[in-house]
Amino acid sequence: MEQSFLAYLRGRCRSLPQVAVGIGDDAAVIELASSTPNGPFIACTDQIIDGVDFVSAEHSFSDIGYKSMAINLSDIAAMGAVPTSALVTLALPKHNATRIAGEVYEGILEAAESFHIAIAGGDISTYDGPLSISVTLLGHVPSGTPWLRSGAIAGDAVLVSGAVGGSLLGRHLRPSPRVQLASELRNVADVHAAIDISDGLSLDLDRLCAASGVGVELWASQIPIHDDAIQLAEQTGQTPFEHAWSDGEDFELILTMSQSDADKVLAMNFECELSQIGNTTSRTGLWKRDGTKLVRLSPQGYMH
Amino acid sequence: MEQSFLAYLRGRCRSLPQVAVGIGDDAAVIELASSTPNGPFIACTDQIIDGVDFVSAEHSFSDIGYKSMAINLSDIAAMGAVPTSALVTLALPKHNATRIAGEVYEGILEAAESFHIAIAGGDISTYDGPLSISVTLLGHVPSGTPWLRSGAIAGDAVLVSGAVGGSLLGRHLRPSPRVQLASELRNVADVHAAIDISDGLSLDLDRLCAASGVGVELWASQIPIHDDAIQLAEQTGQTPFEHAWSDGEDFELILTMSQSDADKVLAMNFECELSQIGNTTSRTGLWKRDGTKLVRLSPQGYMH
Repeated sequence: MEQSFLAYLRGRCRSLPQVAVGIGDDAAVIELASSTPNGPFIACTDQIIDGVDFVSAEHSFSDIGYKSMAINLSDIAAMGAVPTSALVTLALPKHNATRIAGEVYEGILEAAESFHIAIAGGDISTYDGPLSISVTLLGHVPSGTPWLRSGAIAGDAVLVSGAVGGSLLGRHLRPSPRVQLASELRNVADVHAAIDISDGLSLDLDRLCAASGVGVELWASQIPIHDDAIQLAEQTGQTPFEHAWSDGEDFELILTMSQSDADKVLAMNFECELSQIGNTTSRTGLWKRDGTKLVRLSPQGYMH
Repeated sequence: MEQSFLAYLRGRCRSLPQVAVGIGDDAAVIELASSTPNGPFIACTDQIIDGVDFVSAEHSFSDIGYKSMAINLSDIAAMGAVPTSALVTLALPKHNATRIAGEVYEGILEAAESFHIAIAGGDISTYDGPLSISVTLLGHVPSGTPWLRSGAIAGDAVLVSGAVGGSLLGRHLRPSPRVQLASELRNVADVHAAIDISDGLSLDLDRLCAASGVGVELWASQIPIHDDAIQLAEQTGQTPFEHAWSDGEDFELILTMSQSDADKVLAMNFECELSQIGNTTSRTGLWKRDGTKLVRLSPQGYMH
């Protein structure tokens, strides 16, 4: 199916100036000269597999395609970078391969259009196995340095975008990667460290802290709990806070910056709410103040 | 297994200056400023799957890992580009996942070391399915323009590197991607068009011709037939020429350039032989002179 599907795909993919040569040669040619005068180049890759990361019997293929792009967009946003082009690799079950590829690409192209990304290339195979989508996303930092997990310093404000928990109710398929937020924040604040929430607020916050060699004193009551977490809690018997703390697949950003920068951005309007949920400390670990005592909290979430 | 294997891998991967931040953050940070003052950036991706592109019961996992890199290196060479870093995604069968990942990475790291490539990132999953390896390779064109399939003009000399046919005897697992040849040719000749031979000499030559809008008058007797093609012919009943014409997985380069440039490079020494196998013509199709007549040849090879 590959040649004919590629011909179809070439017709469907918009030409964007960042990709001089896209699908159809041995490799893609990506023009950087005009778009990245200064900053470094960013690349990330994430695969999702039927039966592991989604269930094709329950979800539409276009949603799955959208998700394969969105999770990578979220990684690029967590670097404070601008996504520009994607390479998309599909491993398709033999039965209905062309139909599945077409529907998956509906979601991929919808995400590409929303975020102005060119599909620069990819690969397609059919095999005896479940649908697997692997996306490599390329981007760049327009100026300055990328946001790493390791840049937090003691005394930073810790902010989270949007609201967390309960994504399993469906939001995880159509997350809102915070690309625009990242782009706007770069212009107004010096973000010290960032990570996106894929495996759970507490687990990813713990990873950022471990990489930076700091801890966090959390304002637990300030953690923005998503309505989905409240709804899901009614089904599970867990508390909404527990869902917010550990569910994952929120694809929101955790950001650290100076308290003065935080005060400034907290007074501004972005595509989503920003909430301060605590401050970093030189004492490692996640802590909550309970009266006059500090109580240590355990990070929980999805462990690979 | 992912966290512990990634920790192991981080230890095994050499630090190279082109990757400022590798495995362990949300995305890789690739420094281009020093290495690519002028030319464009190149990206390609290719996956190989057990039962489709190799048979793990017959081949060693390290050979399979090596191949996953080599086929992408060949694509980068076919663009006249220099490879710099790779993102490696594995989908591993649940049984023996860690052992398989370790052995696959032996071959991947061997190729990375041989070609001075940094492993910038990747993804690892285990699932109910066959081993699948997807590599995205990034590179750049040091100066000038990339070699496209579409650049050939009538009257070009058509050259092929090495010798072709019979790769199935084992060479297909450990091909010699022509990265060094491409790099040296850039300095001495103006290559008009290039493609690597993955699906068969005749099929890939036909693709180059179709992209360029030209044909080729072949010097059929000058096609460099690999010893493997002669050996395989003894088993198959096909002729060595038929194997050379259509076998594929040679990962040699087909190159076109002016006859004067060809005369110059044919007199030089590279990592492998170069052979002129004909000239491009304005009449499309693949042709062979038989006495005074031109006979049209059919491209044959591996169709996806």
